Amino acid sequence: MNYIVGIDVGGTNVVVGTVPQDGSALHGLVTEPTRVADGPDGVVRQIARLAQHSLDATRRALASDPPTVIGVGIGAPGPLNTSTGVVLLTPNLGWRDFPLRDRVRDAVGLRASLDNDANCAVLGEWWRGAAQGARVVIGLTIGTGIGGGIVLDGKIFHGATDIAGEFGHMTIDSTGRQCKCGNYGCLEAYASGPAIAARAVEGVESGATTRLPTYVEGNLSAITAQVVYRAARDGDEYALEIIRDTARFLGAGIASLVNIFNPEVVVIMGGVTLAGERLFTPLIEEVRRRAFRPAVAACRIVPGTLTGTAGVYGAVASFKSQAGAAL
Amino acid sequence: MNYIVGIDVGGTNVVVGTVPQDGSALHGLVTEPTRVADGPDGVVRQIARLAQHSLDATRRALASDPPTVIGVGIGAPGPLNTSTGVVLLTPNLGWRDFPLRDRVRDAVGLRASLDNDANCAVLGEWWRGAAQGARVVIGLTIGTGIGGGIVLDGKIFHGATDIAGEFGHMTIDSTGRQCKCGNYGCLEAYASGPAIAARAVEGVESGATTRLPTYVEGNLSAITAQVVYRAARDGDEYALEIIRDTARFLGAGIASLVNIFNPEVVVIMGGVTLAGERLFTPLIEEVRRRAFRPAVAACRIVPGTLTGTAGVYGAVASFKSQAGAAL
Repeated sequence: MNYIVGIDVGGTNVVVGTVPQDGSALHGLVTEPTRVADGPDGVVRQIARLAQHSLDATRRALASDPPTVIGVGIGAPGPLNTSTGVVLLTPNLGWRDFPLRDRVRDAVGLRASLDNDANCAVLGEWWRGAAQGARVVIGLTIGTGIGGGIVLDGKIFHGATDIAGEFGHMTIDSTGRQCKCGNYGCLEAYASGPAIAARAVEGVESGATTRLPTYVEGNLSAITAQVVYRAARDGDEYALEIIRDTARFLGAGIASLVNIFNPEVVVIMGGVTLAGERLFTPLIEEVRRRAFRPAVAACRIVPGTLTGTAGVYGAVASFKSQAGAAL
Repeated sequence: MNYIVGIDVGGTNVVVGTVPQDGSALHGLVTEPTRVADGPDGVVRQIARLAQHSLDATRRALASDPPTVIGVGIGAPGPLNTSTGVVLLTPNLGWRDFPLRDRVRDAVGLRASLDNDANCAVLGEWWRGAAQGARVVIGLTIGTGIGGGIVLDGKIFHGATDIAGEFGHMTIDSTGRQCKCGNYGCLEAYASGPAIAARAVEGVESGATTRLPTYVEGNLSAITAQVVYRAARDGDEYALEIIRDTARFLGAGIASLVNIFNPEVVVIMGGVTLAGERLFTPLIEEVRRRAFRPAVAACRIVPGTLTGTAGVYGAVASFKSQAGAAL
């Protein structure tokens, strides 16, 4: 069996695993904090080391039937160019016009591919996760930012210049909160992890009745989305309200996507899924309220099932797709 | 040369023309007000009569080289089912579960296809109009409602159940104006023809300084979007403001679409294009302000060029597409 190394390069972690061409397993999974301070060349060295580590573990596990490793699929924050393999700009990593694909290829000694990390996560969920078999899949990765991906007939839809799928920057309130991107009322300005935290802190500062400050010893700047979810699990009414608001914002954005794409599956990934049913139940209700009934009827809205590994599976699937007929 | 009859069935008019398979001409163009009061069977009779009329005119024009007519492409308001050829529901026409495709096939005696009218209009602009040659095309038809269509690699993207492309029902203001669809803050609730008129009337009623009432002899309910455009052409400052607001609303929606699809062309069709540069200049500025720079750079935003016939050309192209390899 042919094997491919999947590499998910994030602003926080690098995740690496080795997957057979049929996607039936994931070997040698390793994760490390991204060595952002070492610059792009340092991260390439880190990637090469982790890939080697993953391959060694895979070879040990498959000693009786040694794997043939044919390539490396990379998912990285964009914007990037899938044809040239160049990362154009990554605010979180501080890179600009960096030829990540070819640097990794040279460092690992294997043919490589590059695609956007959110695209890869959605493709991974289509290949091995929550959206298997669906022809029209929309995915959102909700964490520090909100990324998105579109998978049509098992292929990532890239748009004209590899930018398609920026669902975080849909306008849900044209005169609303300013987003880091400069626009007003972006979905990301309401429903990303930091936006959830910011809304929570604003409420605390204007006198909301809540035990949230006790979770951070009174240091409001330490309130994160995770802290809000924890307080909600503990029954804090205000934290629950923040989550319901988040569900309404996400529901407005996802309702638009349901009307636009008429998808079979909308898969939601990332930290926000930690809020569980407290988020999903009102979110699905909101979509039902807003979107066209037949479009809602045709669509499942589900959390991703490949927590932490969707990007690795997707990077492998993306490699296969780019390699195309050659495989 | 093979010829196909294109039929654009709207709530207001039926437009019919005959087009050679290569799209190089449009013969026997006829338009009539849709005989809505005669019910769906009456409209089928009307369609058959107009198709015959168009074919007769075409045969006269091509007497020296008689055309071979191979089919009828129909564009109609949705939702509809392109596989079964059934119109599920058309509020404007009052039809429900009507097998339009097969009724027209039987009445005309030619193989027929059915697709959504907005989808057809965008496909027509891709085939013979403003979006020729583009791989990723988004289109909006802005009139009584706001329809939309997505054309990828020269094919209509239908989504899971033929509903994709409902751009009129994207939320641009999640707590905003209620739309006829029941949702709040839909693009259509701000920028359709009736919404433009409603916003204008609201301003007049609350004392705006404008000559708009003089265009309708003081009967405010007679103010239409067309009246607003006329007043704007005459230099009425308030009418110009209504158009600038329209441009901002459309700009917010189109900026989202630019971030979502990363299209090469966004083509804008319908009555709203009568507002001309007064609309397009601020609209494009608004998109530039809101959307990602590289996505804006990759995209042209243009009015359609097939005024009145995009739907006919598109219905023909859709017939060709559905007939597929058989042609």
